[in-house]
Formats: sequence, C-alpha cells, structure tokens
Amino acid sequence: MNRALSIRSNKNSNSSSGARHGFSFSSLRGTVQPELSKKLYKLIKSENHLIQNYEAAGKERLSIASQLSDWGEATTDEAISDISDKIGVLLSELGEQEDLYAHNLDDSRAILKTIRNTEKSVQPSRDSKARIQDDIAKLKAKEPESAKLVTLEQELVRAEAENLVAEAQLTNVTRQKLKEAYAAEFAATIERAEKQIILARHGRRLLNLLDDTPVVPGDIRPAYEHTNQARQILNDAEDDLKDWQPELEDVPSNAELNDNLMPSSASQRQQTLEGSVMGGESVGHHVAGEHLEQNADGSRISSGTSVTTGPVTQANYPQSESVVSAVA
Amino acid sequence: MNRALSIRSNKNSNSSSGARHGFSFSSLRGTVQPELSKKLYKLIKSENHLIQNYEAAGKERLSIASQLSDWGEATTDEAISDISDKIGVLLSELGEQEDLYAHNLDDSRAILKTIRNTEKSVQPSRDSKARIQDDIAKLKAKEPESAKLVTLEQELVRAEAENLVAEAQLTNVTRQKLKEAYAAEFAATIERAEKQIILARHGRRLLNLLDDTPVVPGDIRPAYEHTNQARQILNDAEDDLKDWQPELEDVPSNAELNDNLMPSSASQRQQTLEGSVMGGESVGHHVAGEHLEQNADGSRISSGTSVTTGPVTQANYPQSESVVSAVA
Repeated sequence: MNRALSIRSNKNSNSSSGARHGFSFSSLRGTVQPELSKKLYKLIKSENHLIQNYEAAGKERLSIASQLSDWGEATTDEAISDISDKIGVLLSELGEQEDLYAHNLDDSRAILKTIRNTEKSVQPSRDSKARIQDDIAKLKAKEPESAKLVTLEQELVRAEAENLVAEAQLTNVTRQKLKEAYAAEFAATIERAEKQIILARHGRRLLNLLDDTPVVPGDIRPAYEHTNQARQILNDAEDDLKDWQPELEDVPSNAELNDNLMPSSASQRQQTLEGSVMGGESVGHHVAGEHLEQNADGSRISSGTSVTTGPVTQANYPQSESVVSAVA
Repeated sequence: MNRALSIRSNKNSNSSSGARHGFSFSSLRGTVQPELSKKLYKLIKSENHLIQNYEAAGKERLSIASQLSDWGEATTDEAISDISDKIGVLLSELGEQEDLYAHNLDDSRAILKTIRNTEKSVQPSRDSKARIQDDIAKLKAKEPESAKLVTLEQELVRAEAENLVAEAQLTNVTRQKLKEAYAAEFAATIERAEKQIILARHGRRLLNLLDDTPVVPGDIRPAYEHTNQARQILNDAEDDLKDWQPELEDVPSNAELNDNLMPSSASQRQQTLEGSVMGGESVGHHVAGEHLEQNADGSRISSGTSVTTGPVTQANYPQSESVVSAVA
C-alpha cells in the first residue's frame, strides 16, 4: 500500500461549481441524472459491475469444483479421485461464499441508493430557489415597481426555507448512509475472508492425505486408506463454518432520524418549520423519507455480535424499486 | 456447507472407458485435445475465466474507489470529503489484493498445465501400444505364419515398456502437481483473505471518525477535526500489510522427481530401463520434464514461513508458452 494517502483525481476542479449550475437539461430526459446525483449514480452503476464479477466468479468456481471432481474420477487413481472430489466440495463452498459476498455488496449498494435518491430530490429545491432569485433580479431591472415583486419575494422566502430543510435532510442522510453502507461492505469483506480462510486451511489439510511419493515403472501404489480422514476434514470445515460468528469493531451511529430526515430530538422544532414551509410538496421527503419508516431491526450488519449501527434501512423497500430499476 | 460430501456428477460413467479409446480424431485437428487431457484442458480454461473475473473485479474496485473520493469532494462537506477519500484508498488496496489473487490463481493454473501436458504426451504411448496389439491380432487371423509377426511382437514389447514408463511419469506428475497447485491456490486464498481483513477492519475504524449526528435546518456542523487520526489509520493499515506473514499448515511433498519424472532414489534402476526403451522419442519427457529442471527455490507458497512443499515449478517456463497460448 505504498501509494499516496489520497486517491482523488485532480481533474475535476470544475465539478464542485458545476454541481450548482449544471442541470441544464436534467428535466428533458428521464434517464439523465441531475448534476447533484450524477457521481453517485455512476458509482452505484460501477458497484453493480463489481457485483456481477463476483457472481460470475462464484459460478465459475462451482463449475471448476465439479470439473475437478470428475477429472479425478477419470484418472481411476483412488487417492486422486477421493481427494479431488473433497477439494471440489471445498472449492464449491468457496464459490458459495463469493456469491454471498456479491449479495452483501448489493445490500450495501442499496444503502448508497438512499443517498443518491435524496440528492436527486434536493436538486429541484436548489433549482427552484435559484430560478426565483433569477426572476426577481430580472424583474427588478425591467420593472422595479412591479407588484409581482412582492409575490416573488414571498415565494423566495418559502423556497429558501424549503431548501434549508432539503439541505439538512441531505447532510443527515448522506453521513448516516455513507457510514452504514461501508460498515456493511467492510463487514461483508470480513465475513467472506474469514469463511474462506476456514475452507482454505482445511483444504491444505486435505492435500496432506495425498501421498506424492513417486513410483518407478511397473510399481503398484499402496492402497489409499484415508477416505475416513478426508471425510472428517470436510465435517470439520462444515462445523467451523457453522460456528463462525462476526467479531467486528463497533461502528456506532448517532443518527436518530425521524421520517422527515430530521433529528428526533428536534422534531418539535422541526414540526413548526415544516408546517410553514412544506405544504404540498416537501422536497426530499417522498423519496428518502419512506425508507426510514421501516427501521424495524436493521440490516445484516446489525445482526453481528458487536455491531450496533443504529437504525438501518432494509435493502428492499418496494417504494423505491421504480427508481432502482431505472438505474440497475 | 450443508450439502452432500461429494460434488461428483453422475453423468460420466462412460468416460473412464472412453478415456482409453476415444482418440479417434485427435490427430486431425491441432486444437482438439486427446481424450486423456480433455477434462483438465477444460478445467484450465474455466480457471482462466475465473481469473478474468477477479481481474475485472480488481479494476472495478479501483474505479469505484476513485469515484467515491471524487464524490466526497463534490459534497463540499469536509468530513465526508476526507473520510470518503481515505476509504477510497482502502478500497483501492482491496482491489489490488483482488488483482494479486488473480495472479496467484494464474500461477496455480500453470502448475495444473504440467499435469495436462503430461496427460497429452502419454496418449500417443497408449495409442501406439493399442495399435500394435491390434495389428498383431489382425495379422494372426489373416496370416498366422507371417514373418512380420515376429517384428510386431518385438515392437509390442518396446511399446509396452515405453508405456509403462509413461504411466509412471503420469502418476508421479499428477500427484505431485495436484498437491502443489491446490496448496498454492489455498495459500493465495488465505493471503487475500487475511490482507483484506486488515483493510476492512481499519475501514470500520475510519468510519467511526464520521459524526452522523443529524442537524436541523440552518444548523452548521461542528468543524471536522479528525484529519490526522484518519491519516494515522491509513498508516496503521499500511504497517499491518507490511508486517503480514503467511502462517500456513505445512503441505510437505515426498516427490523428489528427476528430470525424467522418476524418483531420484530409483534413478539408477530407471537409467537401465530408459536406455532400452526411450530411444528417440521418450514420451512425456519433452513436455513435462523441462519444467522440473528449474526447481531452484520454488514458487510463492514455499516462500512462506512454514510451508515447505518441496520442489516447485516456476509459473513461467518459456518452453511451454507455445502450448499455453494455444489454450489460454
């Protein structure tokens, strides 16, 4: 790991300003993401490719495992036949773990989508505020006495309040979900690793049952007598996998968010604000708010012994599936 | 791992007999493998796909890592910017480990090729013996008194002796290399796993530097003060990776093969046999023998502290590259 302690690309010095203004045709095409959610949209797409690679690797492993077993049988060497078959069993379990890893990555990816969806929903609030400011500036230049200015100023106050809420929701969701998504991803990485270590170590024990002492032409090899031992190693591996428990550094969360993505302790204060601003179309509320209603018991990482990441969103919320399928 | 303790497919009950006779058109097409090496040929091909999946996963990880860092910067939230960048560093190292794993799998795959090449080279010896037996049977039926019968019987004795050597070479190579290939593969699995555990555990520590306490609209978050701590976690991860040492169950080998794929203790006895049989075209010697000449210090698994797998073949022997490229 002897690289720079940052991997940030230097090419995007213009993108942080671009994030504020670059929404020129976001409303024209359904598939085009608003500027604010573009980066995460792409990242989530890449994560999907990553997951597909692991799924493919898992499948290939299963195929190789059974090919190895079949090859071993065809050698008509009893020792090779037995050992190759048992190694095949371990390899296919390695493949299953790869597949489980892919699924766990997908859960983590779903958590990132919550951030992306909130980003997406915050964009119109920024746009709306900017548009009204723009309208006021134009009108002031053209008709400084226009009665419409008063209406616009009132609209701006509402839009600003709405945007203030939206931005608070965004930072709340972003911090909580980023933490949650990568806590889950690292937990999944540790799970795959620890289980595969169990399998690989028993695999090396298995190999020791294969006598590779060379013979000279015409010699007959001594009979293979390790069938039971080989079977026992598989049993040991199975037992070890069953006994496996996650032992993880705690990643606690302070995010006690209400459905409105505001802190629950401040919900009364928020209630007032919401009453005055978020009349018919509270921004960010529809997309991200619903996810947080089902904080029943949390995702897979909170089922670990020492991990209490606080309220965790389930991966499959029917509400957001339409958004999800457009991306996936 | 609650599956049957064998993964053998039941469909190939005919293949072990087929392995003896099914070489009908193996000489007509260069790419067609003789029956004997067909299964391993396919397995090695599948292993190549597996390796490609891991290479692709490694690349995708690197891309995601840098995307995450760029996204974090664009949020203009200093805490998210720093944490996402550092997580990106850990993710990219996870990707590097995935790539290293792919390379190690490729080394193991190269060891399996030694078996396949020997299988391939043994086939003509079996064919030749069978053909002479066939010729004798036919001639005996047609011209029992033919003088050619004596010549053929002499040829058969030579062919049988040659085949005896070939089959001994095959079993010697198969057992040794099977053990070696999977000892390497399991060692690589353990290496990836242990290193990724290091990275993931430090990743979870990093996440704890991100305060996800929610804010209410208009609140300003307290300044981010964990830059040094975050940097220290990366340094810790780097140190742990540097300190990593393989701790593996020993997989000792008894295979002390000479260049002729015979036990070195029996080399004198073998010398006699070889002198009488293996005149111009010793079977299996050219293809597999050369690999064993470079047993200098062994492959990557024998560089571990406790692993002494005995003579190990280097992955890149120029001699076999032509065969390799036809397969890959």
